[in-house]
Amino acid sequence: MDRELVLGLDVGGTKLAAGVVDARGALVSSSWVRTPAGRADGPEQVWSALTSLAAEVLAAGGVTRRDLHGVGIGCGGPMRWPEGIVSPLNLAAWREFPLRDRVAAWLPGRPVRLHNDAVCFAIAEHWCGAARGSDAALGVVMSTGVGGGLLLGGRVVDGRTGNAGHIGHVVVEPDGPDCGCGARGCLEAVARGPALVWWALARGWLPGGLPGGVETGAGGPDAVQLAADARRGEPIAVAAFARAGRALGLALVSTANLLDLDVAVVGGGLSNAGALLFEPLMEELGIRLTMAYARRLRVRPTELGGGAGVVGAAALVLAGESYWSAP
Amino acid sequence: MDRELVLGLDVGGTKLAAGVVDARGALVSSSWVRTPAGRADGPEQVWSALTSLAAEVLAAGGVTRRDLHGVGIGCGGPMRWPEGIVSPLNLAAWREFPLRDRVAAWLPGRPVRLHNDAVCFAIAEHWCGAARGSDAALGVVMSTGVGGGLLLGGRVVDGRTGNAGHIGHVVVEPDGPDCGCGARGCLEAVARGPALVWWALARGWLPGGLPGGVETGAGGPDAVQLAADARRGEPIAVAAFARAGRALGLALVSTANLLDLDVAVVGGGLSNAGALLFEPLMEELGIRLTMAYARRLRVRPTELGGGAGVVGAAALVLAGESYWSAP
Repeated sequence: MDRELVLGLDVGGTKLAAGVVDARGALVSSSWVRTPAGRADGPEQVWSALTSLAAEVLAAGGVTRRDLHGVGIGCGGPMRWPEGIVSPLNLAAWREFPLRDRVAAWLPGRPVRLHNDAVCFAIAEHWCGAARGSDAALGVVMSTGVGGGLLLGGRVVDGRTGNAGHIGHVVVEPDGPDCGCGARGCLEAVARGPALVWWALARGWLPGGLPGGVETGAGGPDAVQLAADARRGEPIAVAAFARAGRALGLALVSTANLLDLDVAVVGGGLSNAGALLFEPLMEELGIRLTMAYARRLRVRPTELGGGAGVVGAAALVLAGESYWSAP
Repeated sequence: MDRELVLGLDVGGTKLAAGVVDARGALVSSSWVRTPAGRADGPEQVWSALTSLAAEVLAAGGVTRRDLHGVGIGCGGPMRWPEGIVSPLNLAAWREFPLRDRVAAWLPGRPVRLHNDAVCFAIAEHWCGAARGSDAALGVVMSTGVGGGLLLGGRVVDGRTGNAGHIGHVVVEPDGPDCGCGARGCLEAVARGPALVWWALARGWLPGGLPGGVETGAGGPDAVQLAADARRGEPIAVAAFARAGRALGLALVSTANLLDLDVAVVGGGLSNAGALLFEPLMEELGIRLTMAYARRLRVRPTELGGGAGVVGAAALVLAGESYWSAP
């Protein structure tokens, strides 16, 4: 096999995704499974699900482990970087899990590189998506959490500890709701999917218009249901997405003013709500983004969609000269 | 003359400063004057004051124009960069003033480089001050405005339009006071010197403890007076600096989370208030800065003080490999 192929893995609290990616950023094969997150699921259950998924996409692509030039991994933070020892906030089974080393043992002798999942999203959009050619780009993933990744001068900004890009912890409501990080009023505390669901329920949202029988937690109403209701015009659901859009807008104003950004690409499950999220966001930018240089900011929905995490992870290896700075 | 000498100029709405700087960042000579800002002072009055000042520091240093290897200029924004056509918010006489070209005509055939004054402050502290050796540093100037400059990976972050680093326009009070930029609740709107003075006066502050005879505007009470009263324990003045410290703290939390900062260096006139500003600032960080990577942030007062702007401007030429990216 002549093509340069890399396995991309995308590890999140909700799903595990994998794909075989070629040197142009195209997916040769890909698949995903729900992240095992039951009470009985320990670190090895999650690991086993990940390796099964990897085997599946290799088989589907007609590729063997030997054909791979390396593995790129995106994973929820926080993590020790570049060591790749991960403790994802939304994946309780893994605490100080040596993910990079485990994958390196699975594919000895090839580069295995790991970065924050939202950084991988941003990389993918810069490499071959909505931020192509940008000098100063932010990628934002609106999902169970709110993550981000930053590229300046066409290169990823890692930060010394690998944690740069965390727009989810820009403060947007100084007296706002408690955040999982221990602070309050962070963008993530206001605008992550579960926060929108809780906010709407507290204001009397009846998921699907059906009173009673509502459970939060597994099987309860989620942001997908909230978006469906918002699309039908349910006013509390509409207001919840507007709240998220405005909060993201405020964080983008601060970030664009601070970093002279060209483009912000917004992905993650919540971005599927489309205009329900983006219109209030753009309205906020229209009001608050005043300085000429900052008004250059373009906000775009993801071009790569659900595959971005896997493609960006693979880019850590396939386009390492731009996207990988660690030894 | 063998030493490599560069003229540094620092142009602000309150003062014009100049200095001859050697290759190690030491000031050979320096001086400053108040910026001509009367009604009759047009662009040429300001220009003339600046060239007189330059002639004075050259003479004081025993240096002629011919000895200079170049000129570095720090100036209040906004500006067209790297062209160096400036329209400083706080210097109404200059709108689209071609400062770089004017200085280049004054010293033909040598490099003349211009950047935001707060970026020059940050550069100076990174080159030979409180941020030496930092991988991710922010410099903040708290004065008539609130400016900033950013260095990542040991190099200045310009932004495509030269406007990166503007921490003064990170939003800290979404419903806060109107800002000169046209938005509201920016750090600058809350924490710049005049805003503190207005805030205190509106709450009954009597400058110097003396009722009556207070005029705002030229000759009226200023942040120096406010700091003097705060040092004597006047409660409204103390509260005004605490408000500024907390606002800066909030902006630093967002910035440290976003950029994985090592160090923030705080200078400008307001920083002379010392603990009155820094204690509330550190308290805010203690509460809001929760993630391990972000808690690495060190906040330090300026080491170079009033000379930082001039030294940083000169560094655009003297250490251009780190601090100058434009052609």
